[in-house]
Amino acid sequence: METKIDFRMATIHDLDSIVKMLADDPLGSQREVYEQPLPNSYLEAFNAITSDPNNELVVACIGNEVIGIQQITFTPYLTYQGGWRATIEGVRTSPSVRGKGIGTKLIQWAIDRSKERGCHLVQLTTDKKRGDALRFYERLGFVASHEGMKLKI
Amino acid sequence: METKIDFRMATIHDLDSIVKMLADDPLGSQREVYEQPLPNSYLEAFNAITSDPNNELVVACIGNEVIGIQQITFTPYLTYQGGWRATIEGVRTSPSVRGKGIGTKLIQWAIDRSKERGCHLVQLTTDKKRGDALRFYERLGFVASHEGMKLKI
Repeated sequence: METKIDFRMATIHDLDSIVKMLADDPLGSQREVYEQPLPNSYLEAFNAITSDPNNELVVACIGNEVIGIQQITFTPYLTYQGGWRATIEGVRTSPSVRGKGIGTKLIQWAIDRSKERGCHLVQLTTDKKRGDALRFYERLGFVASHEGMKLKI
Repeated sequence: METKIDFRMATIHDLDSIVKMLADDPLGSQREVYEQPLPNSYLEAFNAITSDPNNELVVACIGNEVIGIQQITFTPYLTYQGGWRATIEGVRTSPSVRGKGIGTKLIQWAIDRSKERGCHLVQLTTDKKRGDALRFYERLGFVASHEGMKLKI
């Protein structure tokens, strides 16, 4: 029997689980701070995200446990005759469920949600150091047509 | 004497010039429609962009002429301890001023503005078919550390 996964918008009660998941990652461990109480900057960002109608912080849960997270940003552009795009960022799944297709379901949920919101394109960037991620997204139909360029300021 | 360039937020009176510039481009010519009156979808997108405090549509002008455009989106994320990022998109310069460093000034303006807005990172994606763009952004300090993946929906 397949495990039932619920997708919903994150609430403040999920913030601890989310930050823990972000910190429990080879790249995240170098840049996140998971401690009690949580650094206030996480709370400020959470409030900024969840009060913005063009940002959605989504959690995937099995029962009461958060086992996957992602943020979707909806952006209006003039290009493509004034088309909206969805950008997916901060996709993580719990190590306890890895290999069970949770990541695929998360992204599929984001794609469906982006269609509901009238987007013509879903986009994301993936660090070239995350070798498996590129193939994962290619299997879902994404095309690595662009260079993802970053500048720390 | 160096030509004076003014940067400002776009107004509705700039929309015609902006769409014309988006359409006057090897990739844009395949996906934009520049005609009179402008398709309403551009007006709707313009209103969505300019009414969103986290989106800025910027024009570069010499006198009354729009000679460069870009859109900057400011997004709060939980990653990097709740850091804000700026995403630059839709950068175009008029053919009449190409080779005069207008593109560099546009991006430098976006970087300065992103610092003002408290961002820790500026990001963009550039189509791998735009050969010169990669080197242009690398000269400005951007690192092609990520794959930019797109899925049409």
